[in-house]
Amino acid sequence: MQLALIGVGLIGGSAALAMKQKGIFTAVRGFDLSAESLQKALSMGVIDVACGSIEEAVRGADAVLVAVPVLAMKACFEALAPALSEHAYITDVGSTRCGVIAAARAALGEKFANYAPVHPIAGGEMPGVEFAREDLFEDARAISTPAQGMSDAAVGFWEKVWEKVGSIVVRLTPEDHDLTFAQVSHLPHLLSYVMVKSILREEDYDRRLSFAGAGFRDFTRIAASSPRMWTDICMANREAVLDALTAFESDLASAHELVQRGNAKELYALFERASQARRHLFEHRNRGK
Amino acid sequence: MQLALIGVGLIGGSAALAMKQKGIFTAVRGFDLSAESLQKALSMGVIDVACGSIEEAVRGADAVLVAVPVLAMKACFEALAPALSEHAYITDVGSTRCGVIAAARAALGEKFANYAPVHPIAGGEMPGVEFAREDLFEDARAISTPAQGMSDAAVGFWEKVWEKVGSIVVRLTPEDHDLTFAQVSHLPHLLSYVMVKSILREEDYDRRLSFAGAGFRDFTRIAASSPRMWTDICMANREAVLDALTAFESDLASAHELVQRGNAKELYALFERASQARRHLFEHRNRGK
Repeated sequence: MQLALIGVGLIGGSAALAMKQKGIFTAVRGFDLSAESLQKALSMGVIDVACGSIEEAVRGADAVLVAVPVLAMKACFEALAPALSEHAYITDVGSTRCGVIAAARAALGEKFANYAPVHPIAGGEMPGVEFAREDLFEDARAISTPAQGMSDAAVGFWEKVWEKVGSIVVRLTPEDHDLTFAQVSHLPHLLSYVMVKSILREEDYDRRLSFAGAGFRDFTRIAASSPRMWTDICMANREAVLDALTAFESDLASAHELVQRGNAKELYALFERASQARRHLFEHRNRGK
Repeated sequence: MQLALIGVGLIGGSAALAMKQKGIFTAVRGFDLSAESLQKALSMGVIDVACGSIEEAVRGADAVLVAVPVLAMKACFEALAPALSEHAYITDVGSTRCGVIAAARAALGEKFANYAPVHPIAGGEMPGVEFAREDLFEDARAISTPAQGMSDAAVGFWEKVWEKVGSIVVRLTPEDHDLTFAQVSHLPHLLSYVMVKSILREEDYDRRLSFAGAGFRDFTRIAASSPRMWTDICMANREAVLDALTAFESDLASAHELVQRGNAKELYALFERASQARRHLFEHRNRGK
């Protein structure tokens, strides 16, 4: 089987490597707006053919995986729809669901039945195909979000593919997915970027940052991720991100008041509860270092 | 030379292990309010003698290292002052400086000349002596904050000790230390705790947290640190923490507005600038993974 990969970054590249390694696809035809990324992907063996257009990559492929920033997906679906084989299954790995599914529905027409998206939970890494690894998804969750109009065959096909590359596939509704990830992923990224930005406002920020330790390094690791990808996510999942952000701002204002009033007892209670939850959270996970 | 270690947690325990391993001290007499920690430290070889009181640990020691939460330091200095040998050097590893130095000055009297604090930058780890490691400080910075009344001999002694255990010793004024660390350490800890807390307000928080990935894991790693230690730090460095927090809240409000207005261009510019700074920051560091 031939896979068409649209967008050869960290996630798309790792997916192609893993799916070839597991024998699911024998060849990958890749396309990317960046000729440099495409060349890198070719030389790394992530893709087998570098294509000059989406249509060229998709024509004759048995399956299509779209791995571009979420706001670029609409245009991708529109470009690939006319070139799709009747039997080709389509998927995307986007980090937001409601908007992307709506875009796929509008662009794919009848072929929407062959579409089923799966969002693999693999992040906090440096962006770019040069960081692609075939074991990126092992023991990590992958969220399948079936919706009306997607065929059971398409949903089942892609869920099986992700299981084969080592993911633990979980189903959520698209709405639940977007609310949950606004809180456990999109908002933390926003906060991490803003924290770094807040230090950059200082004249001597370079000197201040030189004193950052392991805590700051961990806290801001996600601020090294792709600014394009995360801008898109915040825009595509705007309502849910704003809800999570508003709740956080209110909790932060309460903490601010505790510090201001010198209320050590309540501040300790807050820290203690968060600390317990955080320790409990990753205790039983494989990758929970 | 004999070291008295007051407070056998992650930092104090690791310091004792490293200083013995480098041959600076031949024996360590430990005291801790927690009999359990003291017993653990003894069985791990972190300390050689478990003492029943601060006075007992300090009496006859050539050097005293205080590694307790910063708000507990005043009481420690008061308890150890009468038992101090004339020649004993005293230090502490507190994460805030102005308040602790003032407490030492008030409690130690003439012996304040023998005192010089050094703050080793090692954090983001799990608290407790069971996580102590003799290589914790290797290639990490340690901030020496000399102030009026501390002798050159005391400052030089402790700076040399920290260099011997592998730290890169840097000097700052106590005021500069407190402002800088409010921003690159204390505020990020506060934000990380509040982020976890903000999810705990949801009824189905357990389910939501189960979808947290590597990004969330890194972002909230510091929320697993000791709630007691970080409450104390926020209280002891209240003014500087409030300044940093107020600046952050204003930057966050600006980002909130960008998301609300759908201003992708400005949001991208913010993310891009933070991302560049973050990538640059740890590029050239040994431990900058």
